[in-house]
Amino acid sequence: MLNYMTSGESHGKYLLAILEGMPSGLEIDMEAVNHQLWRRQQGYGRGGRMKIETDQVELTSGVYQGKTTGAPVGILSVNKDFKLDSMPELERPRPGHADLVGSLKYNEGIRSILERASARETLLRVAIGGIVRQLLGVFDIKITSQVIELGGVKVEDASGLAFDEIEKKKKDSQMNCVSPAAEKKMIQLIDEAQKEGDTLGGRFEIRVKGVPLGLGAHVTYHQKLDARIARAVISVQAIKEVGFGLAEELGHLPGSKSHDEIFYEKGRGYFRKTNRSGGFEGGMTTGEEIIVRATMKPISTLRKALQSVNMKTHESEKASFERSDTCAVPAASVICEAAVAYEVANAFLEKFGGDSLSELRRNYEGYLKQIK
Amino acid sequence: MLNYMTSGESHGKYLLAILEGMPSGLEIDMEAVNHQLWRRQQGYGRGGRMKIETDQVELTSGVYQGKTTGAPVGILSVNKDFKLDSMPELERPRPGHADLVGSLKYNEGIRSILERASARETLLRVAIGGIVRQLLGVFDIKITSQVIELGGVKVEDASGLAFDEIEKKKKDSQMNCVSPAAEKKMIQLIDEAQKEGDTLGGRFEIRVKGVPLGLGAHVTYHQKLDARIARAVISVQAIKEVGFGLAEELGHLPGSKSHDEIFYEKGRGYFRKTNRSGGFEGGMTTGEEIIVRATMKPISTLRKALQSVNMKTHESEKASFERSDTCAVPAASVICEAAVAYEVANAFLEKFGGDSLSELRRNYEGYLKQIK
Amino acid sequence: MLNYMTSGESHGKYLLAILEGMPSGLEIDMEAVNHQLWRRQQGYGRGGRMKIETDQVELTSGVYQGKTTGAPVGILSVNKDFKLDSMPELERPRPGHADLVGSLKYNEGIRSILERASARETLLRVAIGGIVRQLLGVFDIKITSQVIELGGVKVEDASGLAFDEIEKKKKDSQMNCVSPAAEKKMIQLIDEAQKEGDTLGGRFEIRVKGVPLGLGAHVTYHQKLDARIARAVISVQAIKEVGFGLAEELGHLPGSKSHDEIFYEKGRGYFRKTNRSGGFEGGMTTGEEIIVRATMKPISTLRKALQSVNMKTHESEKASFERSDTCAVPAASVICEAAVAYEVANAFLEKFGGDSLSELRRNYEGYLKQIK
Amino acid sequence: MLNYMTSGESHGKYLLAILEGMPSGLEIDMEAVNHQLWRRQQGYGRGGRMKIETDQVELTSGVYQGKTTGAPVGILSVNKDFKLDSMPELERPRPGHADLVGSLKYNEGIRSILERASARETLLRVAIGGIVRQLLGVFDIKITSQVIELGGVKVEDASGLAFDEIEKKKKDSQMNCVSPAAEKKMIQLIDEAQKEGDTLGGRFEIRVKGVPLGLGAHVTYHQKLDARIARAVISVQAIKEVGFGLAEELGHLPGSKSHDEIFYEKGRGYFRKTNRSGGFEGGMTTGEEIIVRATMKPISTLRKALQSVNMKTHESEKASFERSDTCAVPAASVICEAAVAYEVANAFLEKFGGDSLSELRRNYEGYLKQIK
Repeated sequence: MLNYMTSGESHGKYLLAILEGMPSGLEIDMEAVNHQLWRRQQGYGRGGRMKIETDQVELTSGVYQGKTTGAPVGILSVNKDFKLDSMPELERPRPGHADLVGSLKYNEGIRSILERASARETLLRVAIGGIVRQLLGVFDIKITSQVIELGGVKVEDASGLAFDEIEKKKKDSQMNCVSPAAEKKMIQLIDEAQKEGDTLGGRFEIRVKGVPLGLGAHVTYHQKLDARIARAVISVQAIKEVGFGLAEELGHLPGSKSHDEIFYEKGRGYFRKTNRSGGFEGGMTTGEEIIVRATMKPISTLRKALQSVNMKTHESEKASFERSDTCAVPAASVICEAAVAYEVANAFLEKFGGDSLSELRRNYEGYLKQIK
Repeated sequence: MLNYMTSGESHGKYLLAILEGMPSGLEIDMEAVNHQLWRRQQGYGRGGRMKIETDQVELTSGVYQGKTTGAPVGILSVNKDFKLDSMPELERPRPGHADLVGSLKYNEGIRSILERASARETLLRVAIGGIVRQLLGVFDIKITSQVIELGGVKVEDASGLAFDEIEKKKKDSQMNCVSPAAEKKMIQLIDEAQKEGDTLGGRFEIRVKGVPLGLGAHVTYHQKLDARIARAVISVQAIKEVGFGLAEELGHLPGSKSHDEIFYEKGRGYFRKTNRSGGFEGGMTTGEEIIVRATMKPISTLRKALQSVNMKTHESEKASFERSDTCAVPAASVICEAAVAYEVANAFLEKFGGDSLSELRRNYEGYLKQIK
Repeated sequence: MLNYMTSGESHGKYLLAILEGMPSGLEIDMEAVNHQLWRRQQGYGRGGRMKIETDQVELTSGVYQGKTTGAPVGILSVNKDFKLDSMPELERPRPGHADLVGSLKYNEGIRSILERASARETLLRVAIGGIVRQLLGVFDIKITSQVIELGGVKVEDASGLAFDEIEKKKKDSQMNCVSPAAEKKMIQLIDEAQKEGDTLGGRFEIRVKGVPLGLGAHVTYHQKLDARIARAVISVQAIKEVGFGLAEELGHLPGSKSHDEIFYEKGRGYFRKTNRSGGFEGGMTTGEEIIVRATMKPISTLRKALQSVNMKTHESEKASFERSDTCAVPAASVICEAAVAYEVANAFLEKFGGDSLSELRRNYEGYLKQIK
Repeated sequence: MLNYMTSGESHGKYLLAILEGMPSGLEIDMEAVNHQLWRRQQGYGRGGRMKIETDQVELTSGVYQGKTTGAPVGILSVNKDFKLDSMPELERPRPGHADLVGSLKYNEGIRSILERASARETLLRVAIGGIVRQLLGVFDIKITSQVIELGGVKVEDASGLAFDEIEKKKKDSQMNCVSPAAEKKMIQLIDEAQKEGDTLGGRFEIRVKGVPLGLGAHVTYHQKLDARIARAVISVQAIKEVGFGLAEELGHLPGSKSHDEIFYEKGRGYFRKTNRSGGFEGGMTTGEEIIVRATMKPISTLRKALQSVNMKTHESEKASFERSDTCAVPAASVICEAAVAYEVANAFLEKFGGDSLSELRRNYEGYLKQIK
C-alpha cells in the first residue's frame, strides 16, 4: 500500500516529500518525472513564478542504481526563490484563501498560513504522480486530461472523445484543450480578465486508460475507489467539485440512459459500449476508462482586490496582493492527473500485493487470466 | 477521533455497526436516532421494502444508564426480512450495480456481492449520523438537506434560502423539497417512470449550520475537511458527483464573483455576506454554513431491464430484477446528511479533543473566546 | 488488509465485533471458532463466570452459505449474565485496574470504566483469532502456546521443544503446560493463593509454525511485524512484557551466541539450525517458527483487598471487590495466540493481496517458487 | 495527532523525515535537537562512523521565524559519508540482519536491503524525538534513560532510583549508567568482546516524568498507550524485548505485591507510593513515572563472522563484514527515549487537541483542574 507526506512552504528553502510502499525493481526515469513538473508549469495565463523557475526534483532515497528498492522514496526540490523568513507579514486576508481562517485557527500571522496553503505544495504531488505513473505504465495504464470549460467557454463533444484522440488533439495546446477554436476564445477571456485584474476558473476531465476491472471494493465505504479519488481531487487547492462519468447530468437522465449495458465476446471478455459511469460500479473499476470531471474555482488572489479587513485594526480594507496567476486550469488538470494516478496505483498495489515488480506482475497476470 | 465500521447484508439476519471515539457523558435520545431511520425510509417513489419494514436500531454498548461512556458504541438492527441463505442466485448482472465487477473480482456469485453492495448498509450510516448529530446538537450545530433537482425539474432559487427557511418550507414535503410546485412535477415524473419501468436520479444540497470557524486543516491533503466530506458523500451508494458552494458554477464565473469578501463587526467578529465557497477556505470551515451539493444517479435496478449477459452461458440476456424503488433521491439526501454530520463531528473532536462532554465543552468555549 | 473493532461491556447484553478484509471463498467452521472460546474459558484457578457461561459467537454477516464473501464479518455474542444498567456503582477503585484513571479521565463513575476495561472484551478477539486461524490453516500455518512460568514455578527446557512436541505434551494439561510436574506445583500455588485471597501471574510462549519467510517489512517502523505483534500482545489486558526468541536473555549473551547462522540445502532452500531470533530479522519473518514470550501480571482484583480511596469521601478504604479469578495465565496464553494469529494473517494478506482465497493461493504459491 | 515518515539509506546522500501534527507557536531550539543526535553517537564501544561524522539536522519547513506554524516539519540530514551507488554488493548475508530475508522478499541484492535496514535511520527518529520533547518540555514532561545490564553485568538497585537521581548519577557516564563500578566492568567486557571480534547487548530503562494521568485509553486495543510504546520500542533496530514497570518479574510475584495501592491527599490529589505498573493501568497513564524496560540484542555484524551462505553459489561461507560497533546499548537507550517521547507526545495531543500551543495549554490546564 502506498502512503505519502509532503512538507514545505511556498518560499521555503526546500520542499520534501516521502512516498512509502513502492515495490522494488522499478526503473525510474527522472526525466519523465521532471517532465510532469514542466507540464504543471504550463498554460496560458500563468504569472511571474512560472516564468522564473523551472521546477525539478531529486530522489534522495529508495532508489539504488536507478531502480526502486522497496524503501521509502525521498523527494527533494530546491526553491530558487527562497526567502521565507524575510517575507513581509500580511494584514489583510485574501477572500477565498486560507488566510483568515488559518490565521485565527492557528493563532498565527497570515504569512505562516499562506506559505503552506499555497499550491506550490502540488509540485510534490505531481512528482509523486510522476513516479507512480511509471509503475502504472508497466501495466499499460495511462493517464491524461483535458480542459473542457473555461470562463463559460465549453469545448463541445469533449467527453465523447477516446483517450488517444484527446492525447492527439491537444498535443500543441497551451490550454490542455482539444479544440483550437475553444482555446482561442479561452485565451481572449484570460487576456481580458488579466487586464481587469480578475481571474478565471474552469472545468476539466481526467482519464485513465487500461485499468483492470476490480480495483477498489464495494464492501466498505473507505475502500470505494471513486470516493478515494473524490477526496484526492477535492484536496487539490481550488478544486470545488468532482464527478464521475456523466456526473451531474445523471441528475436529470432516466435510469434507462444512465447505466452501461453489459456485453461479452469470447477472447475479449465482458465489456461495455458506453461509459456513463466513468468506469465505476459499486466503487470498483469496471475495466472501462476512468473519467473524472472536476471544477476549479477562479484563483483567489485578484489584482482588483476584494474587500477584506485589516486584522490589526479591524478596519475594512482591500485584500493584500501576492504575485499570482490569472488562470491555472490547465495546471490544475495536470495536478489532478497526479492525484488520480496515485489513487489508482494505490488500489492496484492493494489488490495485487507484491514487494517486487516481478511479484506484482505475476500476481496481476494470474488475475487477468482468472477474470477472462 | 471518531471511527466506524458497518457490517451486514441486505437480507442478512442482523446489521451491525461499531462507532469508536464518542466522548463520555452525552445523553442519547433513541427516538431521535430512530427518527433519522424513519426519514431515510420516506419519499415518494419508494418500493416494497420501505413499506414492509420500519427500521430500528438498538445500541448494544458504549451507553450506560442512557449516557455515553467513551467506549465503542455497538449498533444492531434486526432484519425482519431475513432469508439470506435461501435467496436465489442471480445469473444476469444488473448494469450500474456492483454485480458484474464484484462477482469477477471476488470470484463469487452475484448474490454475495449485491447483498453487501446494497444501500441497506446505509441504515447503519444513518444511525451513526443520528448519534453524532446529538453530539453536534449540544454545540448548536444542525444539519438539513433539500432536493434541488429531480429528473430535470429544478427547484428555482433553492440555494438562496437560509437554513431555517429550508427547514420550514420543506416541512410537509414528501420529496424533501421546499417548493410544492416543483414537488408536484417531480411526483408526476416518478409516476411516469414507474409506469415505464424506468427510474430517476436527482440532485440535492446538504447544509450544516453553526459550525465554528477552523474545522479541518490546510496543512495536509488528508486533513482538508471538504475533501473528507467529498469522500464520504461519494461513498454513499449511487452518488456520482459532489461539490461545495457554487460548485460547478465556479467553472464559468470570474474571480470577482466567486469568493466571499470579509467583514468584521465588534461582538460578532469576522463574517461574510455571501457564501459562494460553501463554507470552506483552504479545506477549513469559514464559520458560514457548509453547503454540499450532490448528484444521485437513477437507481440501477430497472423493471424495464437493461441488456446484460448470462454469466453461466455468456449469452446476451436482460438483466435480473430484484425488488426496488423508482426514485430514492429524498432518502439519499437524508443518508448524505448523516455522512456529512459524521465528518463534521469527527473534525470537531479532532480539533477540541476531550474524553468527556464537559471537557469538550470547556475546550470549545475557550477556543470561541480566542478567535473572537 | 484486515481491520477490526470490538464493542461491548462485561455485563452488557451483547458483545459485537466487525472484522474487515477477509478474502472471499473461505469455508468457516463455527465449531472451530467456538472451540477457541472454550479454550479461553479453561485453566485451573478460574472463578465464577467461567463456570456459569459457555461463550459462543454467531457470525452475522460476511458469510453466505458457509463461506466468506469478502464483506465485513459481523460477530455477535449474547451475554447470559446481562444486567448492566442495574449493576451497582463502585466507590473504591481497585489498584491495577483502569478504575481510578479511567474514572478521572472520562469524568464518569467506576462502573462505566471497568465494564469496558474488563477482559471480557477478549472473547471477541479470540473469536476473530478463531476465524483468521482458519485462513492461516489453509496455508498450513498453525499457532499454539504454552505456559512456561507461574508464580515462580518455571517449566524447565520448555523453550527447547518443537511445536508438535508442545502440542502433544500439553494435551491433557489444565494449565496449558507441557510438564505434569510443574503443573502440579502451579495448581498448589493457585490453591494457596486462593485461600489467601491473593492472585498469581505468569509467563507463556506463543508459537507460530509454517509462516513463510518475508512477512512484515524492514523499510518502515510501522511495517515491522514483530513490533505489531508487540503492540497486539501488550494491548491484551494484564500483559506487561513481551519479547521475541531469547528475548531478555539477549541482554547478557555475546553476539556469537545470539544470532542464527544461515544454511542452504537444495530443495529445502535457506534455513537455520537455531531460532534465537524467535523468527524475526529486520522485523520480517525468517521462515522459522515465530516465538513470542509474554508476561501476565497477577489479576488485579484481590479478595484480600488492597488499599484504596473512597472517591466520594476521599477517605482511605479497602478496594472494592468484583467476582474474579485467582489465576488466568492459561487463558491469557489462548488470548495472545489469537492476537498473534491476527497480526500474522494481516501481514500475510498485505504481502499476497487477493480478494478471493483462490487468488491468494495463486499469489502465495508464485512467491514460494520465487524464493526457493 | 502526530504522524511521521522517515526515508534514507545508510550511505545515501540525504536522510529526510516529515513530522505532521505539531501545534503552532512552539519555539524550536535546534541546538537541543542536535544535542540529542550527539547523545545518540556516544557510548563506549562505538566503531568507525561515530567518530567520523557529527550528525546534524536542518528543519526545512513547518517553522517560521523560529516557531512552528502547524505545517508539516521537514527534517533533512546530509550524509558526509555519501557513496551509495558505488558501494559494493554483498553476497553472504549476515545472520541477525535483514540481509537474507529482505533480499529474498524484495528480489534484490543485499546492498539495497541493508542500506535501509541500517540503524542509521534512527538518526531521524532521534531528531523527531528532539522536537517533540521540546513540546513535552513546555508541560514539564521529561524523559531519561539508563543502561541497567550489559553482557551480564547488572546495575544493582537501578530501578529503585528516582528520575532526578538517575539524571544526576549518570551525568559523566560513557555508558549511560548510574553506577561507576558497573560501568567499569562493562567497559572491560566491551574491550574483551572487541578483541575477540564479538559484540554485546544489554538492557535499559526509559523513564518519563511529569506525564498527566489519563493519556491513552482503555476503550480500544489500539488506543492503549503502553501497547503503542511497545510497538515503537520493538520497531527500533535490534530491540527484542520490552516491558513496563516490574515487567517480567510480575510473572512470579503474587497480586498483593504487584499493584500500586491508591492514596489521596488534599491539594496533591490521588497518588501512589509504589510504581510497579510502570505508570500504566488499563493502557492509560497513572500520573506516576512511565517506566519502560527493553532488551537490545548484541549487534549482528561480527568481525569473528558467523556462518552464512553465498547467495550466488549457495556455498557455505562466512558472513560478510561491514564496518560496525562492538556495543551500542547506550545509543539504543537514547533512541528509545525518542521513540517513547514521540508516543507520549502523540497521546498528549490526542487528548488535549489544540492547533496552537496556547490552545493546547488552555485545554491542558482545564483538565488538570478537572481531575484534582
